[in-house]
Amino acid sequence: MESGRLEAFSDGVFAVAITLLALDLSHGVPGGESLADHLAREWPAFAAYVVSFLTIGIIWVNHHTLFKNFSEIDRTLLFLNLLLLFFVVSIPFATSTTGAYLRGDHHADAALAVAIFQGVFEGMSISFGLLSWWAIKREHLKIAMTPEQARRASIRFGIGNIGYIAGIGIAFVSPLASLALAGVVAVYYIFEQTPGRSQAAVGPDGMPPQEPPGP
Amino acid sequence: MESGRLEAFSDGVFAVAITLLALDLSHGVPGGESLADHLAREWPAFAAYVVSFLTIGIIWVNHHTLFKNFSEIDRTLLFLNLLLLFFVVSIPFATSTTGAYLRGDHHADAALAVAIFQGVFEGMSISFGLLSWWAIKREHLKIAMTPEQARRASIRFGIGNIGYIAGIGIAFVSPLASLALAGVVAVYYIFEQTPGRSQAAVGPDGMPPQEPPGP
Amino acid sequence: MESGRLEAFSDGVFAVAITLLALDLSHGVPGGESLADHLAREWPAFAAYVVSFLTIGIIWVNHHTLFKNFSEIDRTLLFLNLLLLFFVVSIPFATSTTGAYLRGDHHADAALAVAIFQGVFEGMSISFGLLSWWAIKREHLKIAMTPEQARRASIRFGIGNIGYIAGIGIAFVSPLASLALAGVVAVYYIFEQTPGRSQAAVGPDGMPPQEPPGP
Amino acid sequence: MESGRLEAFSDGVFAVAITLLALDLSHGVPGGESLADHLAREWPAFAAYVVSFLTIGIIWVNHHTLFKNFSEIDRTLLFLNLLLLFFVVSIPFATSTTGAYLRGDHHADAALAVAIFQGVFEGMSISFGLLSWWAIKREHLKIAMTPEQARRASIRFGIGNIGYIAGIGIAFVSPLASLALAGVVAVYYIFEQTPGRSQAAVGPDGMPPQEPPGP
Repeated sequence: MESGRLEAFSDGVFAVAITLLALDLSHGVPGGESLADHLAREWPAFAAYVVSFLTIGIIWVNHHTLFKNFSEIDRTLLFLNLLLLFFVVSIPFATSTTGAYLRGDHHADAALAVAIFQGVFEGMSISFGLLSWWAIKREHLKIAMTPEQARRASIRFGIGNIGYIAGIGIAFVSPLASLALAGVVAVYYIFEQTPGRSQAAVGPDGMPPQEPPGP
Repeated sequence: MESGRLEAFSDGVFAVAITLLALDLSHGVPGGESLADHLAREWPAFAAYVVSFLTIGIIWVNHHTLFKNFSEIDRTLLFLNLLLLFFVVSIPFATSTTGAYLRGDHHADAALAVAIFQGVFEGMSISFGLLSWWAIKREHLKIAMTPEQARRASIRFGIGNIGYIAGIGIAFVSPLASLALAGVVAVYYIFEQTPGRSQAAVGPDGMPPQEPPGP
Repeated sequence: MESGRLEAFSDGVFAVAITLLALDLSHGVPGGESLADHLAREWPAFAAYVVSFLTIGIIWVNHHTLFKNFSEIDRTLLFLNLLLLFFVVSIPFATSTTGAYLRGDHHADAALAVAIFQGVFEGMSISFGLLSWWAIKREHLKIAMTPEQARRASIRFGIGNIGYIAGIGIAFVSPLASLALAGVVAVYYIFEQTPGRSQAAVGPDGMPPQEPPGP
Repeated sequence: MESGRLEAFSDGVFAVAITLLALDLSHGVPGGESLADHLAREWPAFAAYVVSFLTIGIIWVNHHTLFKNFSEIDRTLLFLNLLLLFFVVSIPFATSTTGAYLRGDHHADAALAVAIFQGVFEGMSISFGLLSWWAIKREHLKIAMTPEQARRASIRFGIGNIGYIAGIGIAFVSPLASLALAGVVAVYYIFEQTPGRSQAAVGPDGMPPQEPPGP
């Protein structure tokens, strides 16, 4: 219950950020062009929207899973959570910038836009890693992880981080390939799990039980 | 309680999406035209706003009714819920596109805009059907449905789905008739009920009791 | 607890609507004019913003007070609440329209804008009255009201309703006087109370006790 | 529990306001300029965004800490909280105005914009001080403060208030120095604490315990 209001505030930020993604789509509605042409020309904005929606949705699921296991919240966690939200709040800006420049003729602009897009995701990923690391270090989690489980969790995070960092570099070669990579990382996280969801503590339906299994 | 945070996040998305609908109305406020003329010319935007408001309101009521009966949430439900929210988040975009093109001279644009509008509603309806189907299949519902009740629930959903699919086709003949049909489907759902609200489990005030009625 | 999610969704809508009020202020930020001149010219937008902020804030306080006393929610209450939220969601549009036209030269536009503004408030007030009336009629309130208390509550509501209806008429004579009247009604409601807060059930701090006072 | 819905509504407003800050960044995305040039020119908007994000984040943390210690909410607290939210809701407007004018050539505009920015923060700070003062005066706090603790809390608040008031004056000499000062005040509050978090009541992790420590 101690973590209730932090989750409520975070959920509010996640909810507003994920809904604002589509707001930028409607801002682009023009007057002097056929709608079919407009939508065809705007496809990078829709692609960036889908990738960002998935990414915010997944970080929300992981945030939910991590905080469900918290027994208490300290002031450092509050500010690490704010750092995470800073990057979440920046996603609509990065998405709309990507949508606006990816369709243009200027390769340098498209590259920079997608590099910022990937940079914001990387910042979000690092912040989430810090949150998890602090929670484990200070033993705020109700369910302890074995060293083996902690090692696996690190690997899972590492894959996402490497994906985003590689994406920053790839953006300057092929912005579209970099955007596609961000989509692949999102799909990867749909099927992978956060450190709080350790294998020993997962029930048959894929969720940790309410109570730790042993005495 | 397990479903509390999923509901809080979903409520946030529903609340932001339903409030952003009217934001697009104020974006259209011009300077060089009389307000009465402007409002008269913008009536399709107001009509689309009312239909979308009703539709989001009803899906929220049904979401509320479905999740109230959930005993637990698994990871698949989290992502099926995200799929539902994807379409909900797209409604302000579809609504503003419909409002922008329905009043125009180009029949093809108006037809495409309303077809997208109906397509987003159909996607939302299918996602909600998947959520309900998964909940019933995995027996996450606290109140079991008889086969007869499940059959009736399917019919209720089917009517909405057929309405939206028909609406996509009708949009290319008469965009306005299609928008009116979406309004009729919304009014239909105000008086109809979701699978979770089975008839045997409904009290005299139209709501299921807190506890299943028998031993 | 039954009313928890309805309150969460409503709070989300109230919170988004009240925050979007100020968004329209920043949309008006220009480039080619001194900021001091701009702000001086935009004063009707700031006045409308303050009146709308107060009005949404007060309806939230009253909503909070009413639902705190609910023992259960039926489907009719869900849809009456949606009707209330429909008008709340329309307030940012009405506010921004008032701000845009009140400073203009065209008296007819300013009159229509302020009449819409008052009409939205009147719709909100009637919806809230319907919510309260249904709750009392169906005996959903935990704390019963005496006929005398119900009569006083009706008078309190009537004063607000008469204010908004008068405001619609006054708008066509003097839009500014009508806006000022809406501000006066808001201040009136800060010091007055909703039907759920009957005098017999009010503790020394002005709030109803957790439990009804008698055996 | 009495304060639950006030916190939920406030969290919604904080969440929307903090997320709208970045919305204004994407509204500035142009077409006819290289993205790198645009971002370089828009740096005051990003600086103002970071300062406002930190400030809203900190006021949320302090709000959370204060209300966690409330045993009950009276009507005056509801309206003092609305006053606080009025200033919070104005922050996106003040931030976007600062971002728009700070980069311009007109010193008077930049000075006025930053003075408004600091004035909104000062209003927020005074409102929060009133909330705390009322809570202590009416003894709504679960954990009593000693006179020494109350004195220290006043000093902490005073430093922030003096910072914002000085910032209003400094804005007319150097708008940039004033913006930097607002950033320094935000960082100060990250490491300082609110009146509700009195030293005697702080556990080893920096948070007050659930129960007062002794008889």
